This record gives sequence, structure tokens and C-alpha cells, in this order.
Amino acid sequence: MKVTKKIVLEEHDMPTQWYNIVADMVTKPQPMLNPQTREPITQKDLEVLFSKGAAEQELSTERWIDIPDEVRDLYRIYRPTPLVRASGLEKALDTPAKIYFKNESVSPVGSHKLNSAIPQAYYNKIQGIQHLTTETGAGQWGSALSIACKHFGLDLKVYMVRLSYEQKPYRKSVMHTYGATVIPSPSDTTEAGRAMRAQYPNTPGSLGMAISEAVEVALQQPNTKYALGSVMSHVCLHQTIIGLEALKQMEIAGDYPDVVIGCFGGGSNFAGISFPFMRNNLVNGAKTQFIAAEPALCPKLTQGKLIYDYGDTEGFTPLIPMYSLGHDFEPAAIHAGGLRYHGAGAILSQLLKDGLYEGRDIDQLDSFKAGVLFSQVEGIIPAPESTHAICAAIQEALKAKEEGKEKVILFNLSGHGLIDMASYDRYFAGDLH
Amino acid sequence: MKVTKKIVLEEHDMPTQWYNIVADMVTKPQPMLNPQTREPITQKDLEVLFSKGAAEQELSTERWIDIPDEVRDLYRIYRPTPLVRASGLEKALDTPAKIYFKNESVSPVGSHKLNSAIPQAYYNKIQGIQHLTTETGAGQWGSALSIACKHFGLDLKVYMVRLSYEQKPYRKSVMHTYGATVIPSPSDTTEAGRAMRAQYPNTPGSLGMAISEAVEVALQQPNTKYALGSVMSHVCLHQTIIGLEALKQMEIAGDYPDVVIGCFGGGSNFAGISFPFMRNNLVNGAKTQFIAAEPALCPKLTQGKLIYDYGDTEGFTPLIPMYSLGHDFEPAAIHAGGLRYHGAGAILSQLLKDGLYEGRDIDQLDSFKAGVLFSQVEGIIPAPESTHAICAAIQEALKAKEEGKEKVILFNLSGHGLIDMASYDRYFAGDLH
Repeated sequence: MKVTKKIVLEEHDMPTQWYNIVADMVTKPQPMLNPQTREPITQKDLEVLFSKGAAEQELSTERWIDIPDEVRDLYRIYRPTPLVRASGLEKALDTPAKIYFKNESVSPVGSHKLNSAIPQAYYNKIQGIQHLTTETGAGQWGSALSIACKHFGLDLKVYMVRLSYEQKPYRKSVMHTYGATVIPSPSDTTEAGRAMRAQYPNTPGSLGMAISEAVEVALQQPNTKYALGSVMSHVCLHQTIIGLEALKQMEIAGDYPDVVIGCFGGGSNFAGISFPFMRNNLVNGAKTQFIAAEPALCPKLTQGKLIYDYGDTEGFTPLIPMYSLGHDFEPAAIHAGGLRYHGAGAILSQLLKDGLYEGRDIDQLDSFKAGVLFSQVEGIIPAPESTHAICAAIQEALKAKEEGKEKVILFNLSGHGLIDMASYDRYFAGDLH
Repeated sequence: MKVTKKIVLEEHDMPTQWYNIVADMVTKPQPMLNPQTREPITQKDLEVLFSKGAAEQELSTERWIDIPDEVRDLYRIYRPTPLVRASGLEKALDTPAKIYFKNESVSPVGSHKLNSAIPQAYYNKIQGIQHLTTETGAGQWGSALSIACKHFGLDLKVYMVRLSYEQKPYRKSVMHTYGATVIPSPSDTTEAGRAMRAQYPNTPGSLGMAISEAVEVALQQPNTKYALGSVMSHVCLHQTIIGLEALKQMEIAGDYPDVVIGCFGGGSNFAGISFPFMRNNLVNGAKTQFIAAEPALCPKLTQGKLIYDYGDTEGFTPLIPMYSLGHDFEPAAIHAGGLRYHGAGAILSQLLKDGLYEGRDIDQLDSFKAGVLFSQVEGIIPAPESTHAICAAIQEALKAKEEGKEKVILFNLSGHGLIDMASYDRYFAGDLH
């Protein structure tokens, strides 16, 4: 028996509070603006779309926010998740680096998305809301919100990016099994959808378009709210449970990361693994490097501009201060559907501006190559999104080898790819570029 | 926070030995016979097809057999697996019963099959074997053996039942990603396959047919052995790690099962969860009830006869004393591909004859209904095979309700169904019967 492979925590070790990084930021994020008045958004403005609980958390500056018992109760279906030593990957790369990953793929829907789906459904439930709408890219968020809504007795309508709807038909089946309604976006069921189909008849859709549709329905239908799977500060907050657990687990392992890596779509998965460690950079003088791995074909962090932009294509959301490629940016039809988003959330944009982390562009072919290697040496076939983080981790491990350094690398395995096998098929067939 | 949801064990709590129930059986299983001589099979006979390690274990009467360090090392990728309190299911059924399940779906290939794939690949590796062949039904066994072979540097050819090959295309992609070759069976690549296609031109295939093809190749190709995913005593042995862990976990939970349930194809999954508890019936006077849930359309336990029969369709294997529907039985095209097998292994057949457990026939529609309920209340979408165990567990929980008894029920969740979503689609579409 070699080094410990998995660091597991007991249920009673699960964090009781989420971490809100805003409390520790030197420069606070710029406020979101009400697009009509261009005044900073208020909780009341947010409550038009979101649950009261989410709206309150969105603007909170409290450092620690209690996780409700009902939420922790459901988290226990899969949490705490294991921290795994990627010993197979270390050996394959022949690197002196120690590589760890937080394995969020053990969630029953296969990804980290449940971490925010559960509280979002819960806050709507206690407010008496009966219907939710949402968007989903690869389908991970939609699946997560479907089971969370089923648990709390809410009805859910999911607008799924058409490209993913076609690429990943099993995701729709998962949502269906959990009792949700799934509509490929853009659709004919909303004004926004019809307008987008008129403008781009052959569009594969995008997260921005699907958000517009879901928001439109939430605004028009009684007793209905909207839930978003990333970007927003309250979603990043919920995801910090990943990093909070990882902090404890790294301590048990006797290591502290020199590098922390997450893939980046709207930013909540990256926030989740990073923020609890970034706190030590902000307040305790730690020097950890943070890398957000994004698709080279959707390079908001390296090529975007920090502007006030809409979160969706049609312009229904508040104006968000974001590194953005423009809300009408139409991302290429890459297979990492969860990363096909034009902008970064407000907190994440401020942190990028302030140099707390860096974006790294990953080519699609390199991401799948990394995913296949990881599959073969660690056994877990990663989601196409997560392969971006793996690819960056491999780059860092090879750099450590060149430099002869025993670096400690931590990345988040945000999800498995068992429902994305058609993407791997296309990779092996040489159809991807 | 309510009752503990998951009982987790640390890596160092993982069993160091497998349990061989033969040592405790009052009536030992009848020997397998060499079909030429009709003499009891010898280790040397078995070594023609299987690794030396597997052949030795097949005939062993030792009670405890050490798990090699290299095997335990790989087990740690996913083991120990959690024991979960099915509190959501209890609530949905409003039953006084306590329901627990062992969650083998957390394995990276999604099922318990890795428990035997790893040691089988290992024993071939240390013997210097370079090539393995095998069969797979639903693809769970083939996926597991693929990653195990990749780890130990063995080349693998998988004959996959044609019905499953078509129903579950992602399974083939998983095996491909792990580096294996996958051929739909019956195929044109073997004499057995060609003969079966001539006899049954439209056959969807079966495990028995796929075994014939894999065995034929193993017998003809140099430096090649065959590996089987169930039925054989050494496979049942490897799977006992499930029940051995569950024993420890039930003790931590402070309960002991009144009923233990597993689904049943060749029997290794049922053996795995049952044997360590059955030992207490055999030697300690425990009165636990054991239920093997089989498809009503493949009812070997309730309708089969205890005869000497072949393990495969063509008659290449030793003669096995088995409750069998006949080695030429062509099972209906049900979606639980892993349960489409005509016979029960030798140990399991003797135990059935001696009344140590009972078979229970589950209708396909009932199995999917149970699977959907379980998905919605526990979050995990079960494999079509596992839904049979869930269905039997629900029947027992409802019986406990009728009787007003606080029964303790334990079942094995052998795998998740994320790659079987097309089966759920057909269920919802009303296409199944």
C-alpha cells in the first residue's frame, strides 16, 4: 500500500457555513446595475427574478453564511466528497509534483452543480414558490436542479442549449426521470427564442440565449422564479463548500497547494475550489497560484474586456460588471457545453482585474487528450468541461518536472463524462478540432 | 440533521481478505466436470482457460483468501464504498422498515464489476499473459475489465451482446476510451458466432453466446486467457468485499439485516452482498432472509432445474452444476442486459437447493417503476439490473408496513444507470412490457 489514495471526511466534518470572499476582498466587486435606472441593483430588484434567499446572499458582505439544515441534510447524499491523490497521473507524467483532485463527480448527477441547486430550490420552497425555470448547457446544471426541485416539490422547466440537447440526449432523459420538462433552446415557446431563431436560423444555441428564454418565462408566469447555475455571487458562494472541504482534506494530507486549478464557464466551479484557498492569499500572505482553465474558443478571461454587460443574449438580466466577449457572442460548437458562456461573474471579474488569478486558454483537442490520459490512469472518464482543468494541471505538473520542483497541485474534477461519451467518440474519430 | 445518511469507512478499514463461503457450507457444491471425461475438473483443466490465480481460487476450500496488495491498491480508487440509509425511500413508502443500500455505483465504471476485474487482470499479469478475452452483457463487466487491463498493461477483446451493443452505445465508447476492442456478439469473427448467426439470423445475442465467442478466441490465440464476469466461484469470492464492508458498516449503524437482497444474473453480485451475512446463518444461528431478484423473463432460480449444464451456448466451458433454463435458452430482449443469463453458479445453486436463499421474479415494468421512484427520492438513477433489487426491497418494506414490523432491509445497489438512459426513455414512452 502506497500513499493514501483518498482523503474522506465524515458527515459531521461537512462545513456548516459557506464562505463569502467579498468580505476579504481589498477592492470590492463593482455593483450590478439596474438596466433601466443604471443605479446599483437592490435586493428588491433581484427578488423579481430570484428567491429572497438568493437575492439576499447575492448582495451580502458577511464572511460566513450558515448552510440551512435542510440543505446540509440533502448534501449528505454525496458530500463530503473525496479528495484524491492522482498517483496514476503523477506516475504517467513522471513528475515530482504531487497532484490532488477534489472528486465532485461522485454526486448522483455527476457534477458539482447540486451544491447550488439544492439551496436554490430550498430558498424558493420556503418562500412558497411553485415553479422554477432555468437554462442548462451540457445538462449538468439542469439535472441537478431537476432532482433538487423534485425533492422540494417544485415544478421545473429547463431550457437546454440545442447543441447539447442533440449532443447529449441522455441528459434530457436524466432530467425527465427526475420529473422536469426540457425544451431545446432557442425554442418557439418564448418571444426571445423566436427572435433568436429568426436572426440565426441555424444557431446551435448558447447559454446566453437559454437564459433569456428561461428569464422571460419566469417574468411572465405567476408564482415562478428563475434559477441560474453559475455567474452569480450566490452561486459562487454555494460552491465554496468544495474548497472548504478541500482545505480540511489537504491539511489531513499534510500538504498545501502551490497551484489551484478549476475550469471556467461562468466561474462558480472555479470559485468553489479556489475561494477558500484564495482567502489565505488575501489575509494570510499565502502565495498560491490560481489558474482558471477556459476553452481557447471562448476566451473571456484572456481576450474579454471588463465592461458592464448583460448575462443573457437578449438583455433581460441586470447589467453585470464582467470580463466579457459581448452578450451577443456566439460561442463555437465545442463539446464542453458548460463552458460556452460569454462572461465571468462580478466577483470573479474583480479578482481577475486585481491579479488574484489568471485565465489559461485550452485547445479542445488538448483537453480531450488530457481527458483520455486521465481516464486510463485514474479510471474516471472526466466531463469535457473538467478535462480543461486536467489539461492545465498536466501543464503545471510538466513544468514542475522541467524545473525539478516538488510542487503541490490541486484541481477540481467538476464532473464525470459518462453522459458525454458521444464527444469522446467524435474525438477518437478525428472529427474534433 | 437526521439519522446518519452515509456510513463511510477509511482506506485502512478495507478488508484484507475475501471470504470463501465453501468453507462453511454444510453440503459442499457439486464439482464442475470436464465435459470430455466427465471427471471433476482439475486446476490444470481450468488453467487452459483461466489464470493460475483464478483457477486455484475456483477450487479453494480455504475460508479466507488474501487480497494481494496490488489489488487493494487499485480498489482504493473507489473502495470502501458507502453504506447509505435510504431515508428518502423509507419516507416515500411510509414504512417502519429501515432500508440500507451498499452503493457500488460510486465505482468509476459505475458498478461492482471492478471488484473482480482488478484481481482477474492482476493474476493474468503476474503470470505473463498478454491478451485477455471476455464477454459483456450491459457492458458493466466489459468496462471494468477494460480499465483493469489498461492498468496492468494487458490487451483486451470484449464480445458484447449485440442487443446491449445497440441499446447502450456509450458503454462501447467507455471501453474504447479505456483502450479495449469491442465486438458485437454473435459476430463473424469466430466459428461459434458464425454458427449462431446461421441458426438464429436475427438473434439479439445473449451472455451465453458471447461467452462462446470469447472462449473460442482465448483457446486459439497464443498467450491469451479468458476472464468471466460472474457465475464462477472465484468471481463470487472477489465480490464478497461488498458484504464484508457492509458487515462492518451495519455494525457502525447499530443494525443487523433481517433481509438481504441482490439482483441476480450469474450470481456474483448477489453472492457479494450476501455471503458474509449468510455465514452468520450457517455458523452463528442468524435467521436473515436472503432474496435474489431475477427478471421474470429469465427465471432460472424459480423455474430452472438443477442440472449439469454448460456456461455458454456452444458448450465450450466445463459442465457446471447449475439451476439452469438450458444453455441454449434465448432470453427475451429485456433492458437488464446483465441479468440475461441462463444459469446460476455452482455454489449459488447448492445454496439455493439447500434453502439458504430464495429467488424472486421481478417484472420488467415493475423494475423500472421502482427505479424511477428510487431516482426521485434518493437521487441516484439505478442501472436496470439494480432496479430488480430495489423492487424486491420495496416489496419487503411494504410487507413490513402491512405487518407493522421495524424490519432492517439491506440491498446492493450494484450500479447506476447513467449509461442506460435509453432504457428509461423507452419505459417512459410506454414501449416496454
